[in-house]
Amino acid sequence: MNTPTHPTPSPLVPRTVPAALLEALAARFGAQCSTASAVCEQHGRDEGSLVAPPPSAVVFAHSTQDVQDAVRLAAQYAVPVIPYGAGSSLEGHLLAVQGGISLDVSRMNQVLSVNADDLTVTVQPGITRKALNDAIKDTGLFFPIDPGADASIGGMTATRASGTNAVRYGTMRENVLALEVVTASGEVIRTGTRAKKSSAGYDLTRLLVGSEGTLGVMTEITVKLYPLPEAVSAAICSFPSIEAAVRTTIQTIQLGVPIARVELIDANSVRMVNAHSKLNLREEPMLLMEFHGSSASVQEQAQTVQEIASEFGGNAFEWASTPEERTRLWTARHNTYFAAVQSRPGCRAISTDTCVPISRLADCLLDSVAEADASGIPYFLVGHVGDGNFHFGYLIDPDSAAERASAEQLNHQLVARALALGGTCTGEHGVGIHKMGFLLDEAGVGAVDMMRAIKRALDPQNILNPGKIFAL
Amino acid sequence: MNTPTHPTPSPLVPRTVPAALLEALAARFGAQCSTASAVCEQHGRDEGSLVAPPPSAVVFAHSTQDVQDAVRLAAQYAVPVIPYGAGSSLEGHLLAVQGGISLDVSRMNQVLSVNADDLTVTVQPGITRKALNDAIKDTGLFFPIDPGADASIGGMTATRASGTNAVRYGTMRENVLALEVVTASGEVIRTGTRAKKSSAGYDLTRLLVGSEGTLGVMTEITVKLYPLPEAVSAAICSFPSIEAAVRTTIQTIQLGVPIARVELIDANSVRMVNAHSKLNLREEPMLLMEFHGSSASVQEQAQTVQEIASEFGGNAFEWASTPEERTRLWTARHNTYFAAVQSRPGCRAISTDTCVPISRLADCLLDSVAEADASGIPYFLVGHVGDGNFHFGYLIDPDSAAERASAEQLNHQLVARALALGGTCTGEHGVGIHKMGFLLDEAGVGAVDMMRAIKRALDPQNILNPGKIFAL
Repeated sequence: MNTPTHPTPSPLVPRTVPAALLEALAARFGAQCSTASAVCEQHGRDEGSLVAPPPSAVVFAHSTQDVQDAVRLAAQYAVPVIPYGAGSSLEGHLLAVQGGISLDVSRMNQVLSVNADDLTVTVQPGITRKALNDAIKDTGLFFPIDPGADASIGGMTATRASGTNAVRYGTMRENVLALEVVTASGEVIRTGTRAKKSSAGYDLTRLLVGSEGTLGVMTEITVKLYPLPEAVSAAICSFPSIEAAVRTTIQTIQLGVPIARVELIDANSVRMVNAHSKLNLREEPMLLMEFHGSSASVQEQAQTVQEIASEFGGNAFEWASTPEERTRLWTARHNTYFAAVQSRPGCRAISTDTCVPISRLADCLLDSVAEADASGIPYFLVGHVGDGNFHFGYLIDPDSAAERASAEQLNHQLVARALALGGTCTGEHGVGIHKMGFLLDEAGVGAVDMMRAIKRALDPQNILNPGKIFAL
Repeated sequence: MNTPTHPTPSPLVPRTVPAALLEALAARFGAQCSTASAVCEQHGRDEGSLVAPPPSAVVFAHSTQDVQDAVRLAAQYAVPVIPYGAGSSLEGHLLAVQGGISLDVSRMNQVLSVNADDLTVTVQPGITRKALNDAIKDTGLFFPIDPGADASIGGMTATRASGTNAVRYGTMRENVLALEVVTASGEVIRTGTRAKKSSAGYDLTRLLVGSEGTLGVMTEITVKLYPLPEAVSAAICSFPSIEAAVRTTIQTIQLGVPIARVELIDANSVRMVNAHSKLNLREEPMLLMEFHGSSASVQEQAQTVQEIASEFGGNAFEWASTPEERTRLWTARHNTYFAAVQSRPGCRAISTDTCVPISRLADCLLDSVAEADASGIPYFLVGHVGDGNFHFGYLIDPDSAAERASAEQLNHQLVARALALGGTCTGEHGVGIHKMGFLLDEAGVGAVDMMRAIKRALDPQNILNPGKIFAL
């Protein structure tokens, strides 16, 4: 297995932030602008393992007008602007690798309009996914996309996030209908409509979803909602091996069972989750599943999957029938990352994010598990396996160059394997600065050059989150 | 109701095709290149009502290499290239409004690889949707997207097509996973992978889907397939009014019933279809529905919809339980357009394509029906109403300027109404040259300028299907 052809380029080329810009920001934004080092430090990092010097200032936007004015001032001085939501990205998206200012939209956290009859809602970018679901809980509808963190809807849009429900409900790609965006010149544009489909020109909405803040700053986002299912049931099933769990998943998907969630959790993760969330789950590879639909349909789905699982040696399903039990299980699953990081005090997790066609999942996963076991680095493995997407988290000592190199080597091998199997280096986390080399391997120079050409056309001064996705 | 602010601009600015290019094409392509006037005429029109002088030559590509060489020669002489698939577009997409050559990919019609285990297939762009389904019929899978015509997969990708199944299975937007594309400079790039989801950089696949041949020529397309449902049942239900049929649809969607097809057919259409397809359908507004799933689920869905329909005065469902009966019904539905055009010999149909949020469907539709009735122009109305999308076909005498003006006025009023209700001017046909003014009304100058900037960046000589979507 070779390492990638394209090493990750170094985008660390800070530009100067002139004092005149800081003065202009202070004049325009007053207390909404801070240059305090604690504030700048906090806005200059994310949940990933990479570091860079912090931005020179943070502007807290309260409105589209604020975003416009901040971007216009930055444009005037050709200074980078880095949109900031919940700070939960993993690939260095928020790092000020070319200097500049952080544009914090977390206070733009309102639900602007709920259109329950159309199953849509329009929000500001700073609202988090949990806050959104709280706000609409009386409508009988819900927003299904759930990355591990309680991320902001803006950040989720910018990274094309997904999560445990994507196998049934799709990702942000399928669920964002329309946007209001501030462009690099400070102009406000709207993309898409509330209609369910459209053939009206270039799909700017989909171009902006996943653009990681490099093409525009989102100020309003319209997403799809779904009726709360009439019936929900969750089940855990332990397996004698990861392979058995994965083969159960593959067959479930191939049969077209509309399973709502099917998560792989390896024995390491179960151990960490048990310790962190005070649970007593069997410390074996397991699938955590959820079925949505009418009562009859849920029963039928569960029956089918139970039969498949037992063919592969799965234990009897354990059911979580009350909402409280379900919430406890899913919260534990969502906390795997934090449980893992706590299992090795002082460590940082290097998280992988490959996604492969479902038929290749076992091939990709099992060889990578063998490599991780051989490396001696502590790790956990969880996966949205119904989508062919899974995450190793290598728990490294951040002060050990050897451990970091070893984890990066495992990641390189994994990505090379996933690409050879027709997959992608990132199912849901995005490229940021960490996967720039992988993107070149995956998409090829020609496609990345097309991305660069689009970026140059829409942001000629390269001020919107520069140094992310590709070198420019 | 006002007419749109932005009239459709005239993109008729033919560029000269130098003799040297025609000689170079003849030398490279031999019998695969034709300048015969019948061939050029046939490639210079589509199924819509607009006309323009034909292209100067037609190149029949057999391979990606052929496409590359044709585009490179065109680029060398800065001459337009218009990709041509099945010729079934409706908005003037194929018209050589700036002159140039037609690049016919209909002979690139092979299935390149079926990945049944991953529910994907990779095809060349010239294969039609019916030919694709024939080719995979032994796999137990099917490709659901079905515009009225037996369009090519390339053309369907280029116009972001959908059809009767989109309410359940999505449109080309959701169903294209990956592309091979020849760029304006003749380079071959690949976008996307066979993985179900990805956050790897800009979503070039989704940018190209719906780009109407203006950003690249597709040479390979990977799309999703679906397991043939265990059970399928189709039903017809007649209603006392269009409103009753529409309200039944709205409630069905709002309840989250996973209906596979729900088509509105007005009394005019039923009359035309009866005459054309030798059927005896009741000449009242009707919904033509289909349910997919397990036997139990299909029964449950049908039961729910039947209850809703009867609340709105719908007659008892008539069931089409055999595959032959179902095929006959859906073929009749797909032939509505042709049945309608035959009902007024010599006429051309001006087809509308608005799509609105489902809650606004009745408001949008009923006012427009009243306007159409008052106009005296013969028309038919069909709709993928589960998506909020519907088509009036105004059957005009092409030699009557008054009728054309009257039909265009009806269309303008309809589009203005749809946009005011949060909808789009085109749900599935695309912009072409016919809806350029509407696109400006819908998206705004800023967003269309963003499209233009992307076009200029990726096709600086403006050779790929120029004069479509926006003036440039």
